[in-house]
Amino acid sequence: MKNAVVLLSGGLDSATVLAMAVADGYACRALSVDYGQRHHSELAAARRVAGSLGAVEHRVVNIDLTGFGGSALTDNSIAVPEQASAGIPLTYVPARNTIMLSLALAWAEVLHAQDIFIGVNAVDYSGYPDCRPAYIEAFERMANLATQAAVEGHPLTLHAPLLHLSKAGIISQGAALGVDYAMTVSCYQADEAGRACGLCDSCRLRREGFAAAGVSDPTCYRT
Amino acid sequence: MKNAVVLLSGGLDSATVLAMAVADGYACRALSVDYGQRHHSELAAARRVAGSLGAVEHRVVNIDLTGFGGSALTDNSIAVPEQASAGIPLTYVPARNTIMLSLALAWAEVLHAQDIFIGVNAVDYSGYPDCRPAYIEAFERMANLATQAAVEGHPLTLHAPLLHLSKAGIISQGAALGVDYAMTVSCYQADEAGRACGLCDSCRLRREGFAAAGVSDPTCYRT
Repeated sequence: MKNAVVLLSGGLDSATVLAMAVADGYACRALSVDYGQRHHSELAAARRVAGSLGAVEHRVVNIDLTGFGGSALTDNSIAVPEQASAGIPLTYVPARNTIMLSLALAWAEVLHAQDIFIGVNAVDYSGYPDCRPAYIEAFERMANLATQAAVEGHPLTLHAPLLHLSKAGIISQGAALGVDYAMTVSCYQADEAGRACGLCDSCRLRREGFAAAGVSDPTCYRT
Repeated sequence: MKNAVVLLSGGLDSATVLAMAVADGYACRALSVDYGQRHHSELAAARRVAGSLGAVEHRVVNIDLTGFGGSALTDNSIAVPEQASAGIPLTYVPARNTIMLSLALAWAEVLHAQDIFIGVNAVDYSGYPDCRPAYIEAFERMANLATQAAVEGHPLTLHAPLLHLSKAGIISQGAALGVDYAMTVSCYQADEAGRACGLCDSCRLRREGFAAAGVSDPTCYRT
């Protein structure tokens, strides 16, 4: 079996990606990042999801991004928006996907893995710049100049299988693969038990996605 | 004054880069990364250098890469080579520059800084893939797709002013700018006091560089 590193936040999207990578026959090493995120309970969700979907290993790397701040997820003085707004929302975390993919790249190289999976999507997303196809292509290109593995003829493929799916499409595929979405936490201000606010962008997209997919929404919403 | 983020390891190269960026009129925010490196005393050197060269601020971000290992610098069971060898040496740390640049990118975005400086060079280097011009270009291109700042018309420039300099050329320029190289630590197995082994690749390049530049070498070598 080929090793793959799968970025696993504990949310709906990355859980689906892990299920897809396992179904594709990869020995999946799940990587979560504790960056001081407001919705810290997503990390407990990641542990549950990794175990339930058969990841070979799950690691949590600590890197405190609250020192930089600049996001509602890493600076408690910035409130999580509870209404949709134009432009890139305050929940955008500067360079988050780049940092996470860099860590995945490091682990992949040590594992001799040539495949990294990330659950970004460019359709039902929140306008984050680092979820766009051009960004994913540019990261892969950079990664293939960065490592000894690539220089020695073992290039890396960055898989973003959700890139062109709607949230409903993601949920349909994950449900077919047996993902238990009750284990996942999407809410940007989930409480310690993982209960969702029902108001933030992430809750809205999730709720609409289950409705559009015709799949029963197992989320425990506080409102 | 324009803000810039300057990656500062505490070694000779990055100290020179900081001096160059200060001389260019940037308000420099120096960023060091405690990644569990064997030569931990380089972080104390970074503090001294940042203070001495007039960085506006110096931050150390912790991210433990010893969990991944895969390098003589992050795995104590792999010895630091003490003789020159062909190919990429064991001191290569998987994805290190990509991780550090990602962190610099995050801080730059929060600061509204459009300039990042890194002290890589492609001439007198150790064969690390993430020190090559094509890698630097690819990172900059990726970064300019990654951030809200870039999307909103504030692109980032990744400066690598040492890229095409020899070690002697770097030392000559730094000496002219008043860098006190006695403060810096290059050795991969420097002791707690920052004293150098005199045997590793980094010591060899440094020693040869001072000799070629005709600058007195202030390094305290143990051998």
